Amino acid sequence: MNVAVVGAGSWGTTIADLMVRNGHQVAIWAREPEVVTSINQEHVNRLFLPDAALQESLVAYGDVADSVRDADVIVSAAPSHAVREVSGRVGKALNHRTPLVVSISKGLEEGTLDTMSQVLEETVAGCPVVVLSGPSFAKEVFAQQPTALVAASEDAEAAELVQRTFSNPRLRVYTSGDVVGVELGAALKNVIAVAAGILDGLGLGHNPRAALITRGLAEITRLAEAMGADPLTLAGLAGVGDLVLTATGGLSRNRSLGVEIGRGRNVHEILGERRTVAEGVRTAHVAVELGDREGVELPIAREVTHIFDGKSPREAIGDLMGRELKAEQWR
Amino acid sequence: MNVAVVGAGSWGTTIADLMVRNGHQVAIWAREPEVVTSINQEHVNRLFLPDAALQESLVAYGDVADSVRDADVIVSAAPSHAVREVSGRVGKALNHRTPLVVSISKGLEEGTLDTMSQVLEETVAGCPVVVLSGPSFAKEVFAQQPTALVAASEDAEAAELVQRTFSNPRLRVYTSGDVVGVELGAALKNVIAVAAGILDGLGLGHNPRAALITRGLAEITRLAEAMGADPLTLAGLAGVGDLVLTATGGLSRNRSLGVEIGRGRNVHEILGERRTVAEGVRTAHVAVELGDREGVELPIAREVTHIFDGKSPREAIGDLMGRELKAEQWR
Repeated sequence: MNVAVVGAGSWGTTIADLMVRNGHQVAIWAREPEVVTSINQEHVNRLFLPDAALQESLVAYGDVADSVRDADVIVSAAPSHAVREVSGRVGKALNHRTPLVVSISKGLEEGTLDTMSQVLEETVAGCPVVVLSGPSFAKEVFAQQPTALVAASEDAEAAELVQRTFSNPRLRVYTSGDVVGVELGAALKNVIAVAAGILDGLGLGHNPRAALITRGLAEITRLAEAMGADPLTLAGLAGVGDLVLTATGGLSRNRSLGVEIGRGRNVHEILGERRTVAEGVRTAHVAVELGDREGVELPIAREVTHIFDGKSPREAIGDLMGRELKAEQWR
Repeated sequence: MNVAVVGAGSWGTTIADLMVRNGHQVAIWAREPEVVTSINQEHVNRLFLPDAALQESLVAYGDVADSVRDADVIVSAAPSHAVREVSGRVGKALNHRTPLVVSISKGLEEGTLDTMSQVLEETVAGCPVVVLSGPSFAKEVFAQQPTALVAASEDAEAAELVQRTFSNPRLRVYTSGDVVGVELGAALKNVIAVAAGILDGLGLGHNPRAALITRGLAEITRLAEAMGADPLTLAGLAGVGDLVLTATGGLSRNRSLGVEIGRGRNVHEILGERRTVAEGVRTAHVAVELGDREGVELPIAREVTHIFDGKSPREAIGDLMGRELKAEQWR
């Protein structure tokens, strides 16, 4: 098949390389001219995956329309805040064709509070959309570590097509019909990962981190259920799996941001020094807004936004521990 | 209140110390005379918690009947294979009194495949039973790291009494009505922790571990649901929480056993060198038997038992990755 990956961050680049190895013709669009050049001439993504030797047949484009011209499958891989703009350009280039669109961006849109599939339904209207998510550090997928993902779509055939074309002996893809559950798990886990990093930065232990991950999962699940998800989806790869990976794995950008905050640094100062995106900062505020809209309490996400606004992390922990004693499951 | 803790391993000793700090009169029974002596004379448990200075008013007994004589609350803290024998002695000593019994042992009984609360219902018949579980390394609870637990009982008042008496500003206890869900999460997580250790011992990365934890949770949830549990209980503190702690935290006995197996050692050789119990070994076999009885597939637990019997871990991983592609949720 012809595959186009729109967005050449570390995850988009890794998926593009994987699809070449799976036997497909793959084009990738990069916003940065130096990335286009380095992929085409040196077979490496100098900016976002510098240590990885890419498959030589991967072709990079600087123009979105060029990259998607012959695509049967388009992978939407821009950072969440850029998906509307980039996929809008894809939509215009498609000219009434309706290839399968696979969303691999994790986040929620500020302002609209839309998930990425909701954005895509507007920008590439008529295309079947599949959300691909789960615990997957790009470098480890590149290194062919055994990895499991979930492909969720309202269109079961589309999800199964993604399952068949993305799977290989080192990558196992499960299917799901619960798009909103998978997307909310993927987006909100970044907030809990920041919080987990804060605990680590404060020098706290494994018990607090495990409690935070579990209670974070509980609030993500409450919100997702209010928005129509099956709560068990959040116990799956896009929920628990990705949350465990991001909140305990050393490589996560969101967790490492939290570690620096826990050590006493200011969030704006840290973000000013970084080239890559820590989706959890934007998502924390959007999640709290979503919770307010849906009437769902998100105590951990709310404390994270307070910490971004300058509240002391230790005071935030005290406030979380001091809440009224409850049953484990409540609405 | 008068509290008796029956069993002086690291967790029982920690709970006894915590209850003294919470303002109760606490007795603890230890099987080993040297533990009785070291607690009473030096205020330390030389064998099982040697680095912790215990509250001086904690009194140890070498006789079970002496320890439970005045108890309003009895904490059952023996290793799972010893609970029937020890709690049988408690039952005889009670002489028709029916104090509250709190179970903190994690495991399933070989042969009967009973949970610990099922054992207690036979040995201390008539006593309300509450299962207390969740992510809690003893050393961290002792060090007053923020920790969250769940107290599950069919008797809601009994669960709330445990919530009130065990909680303090560093220990948050939630209630639940789902006893079997909490017990199966607590027991079976040890099997997945062994498997996670094996991956780490093989030098695999974060993606495989997160996938294993999630798919391990899925099979625990399938079994628990077949036995009457609410599947969401397994997404809670006794499921996800304890699983994350045990499978990713450095301190777990089950995980460290797996690490040694992953590095190529034989399970029987490793166990021969250890004083403490790795519940996951016994539980893996019992879990597979339970799955057969309930008609539930447990692919990871089964592969762990095969590895104990000598199968190569890499072959087991290949067999798990090569299974037929599936939907994420199936029965």
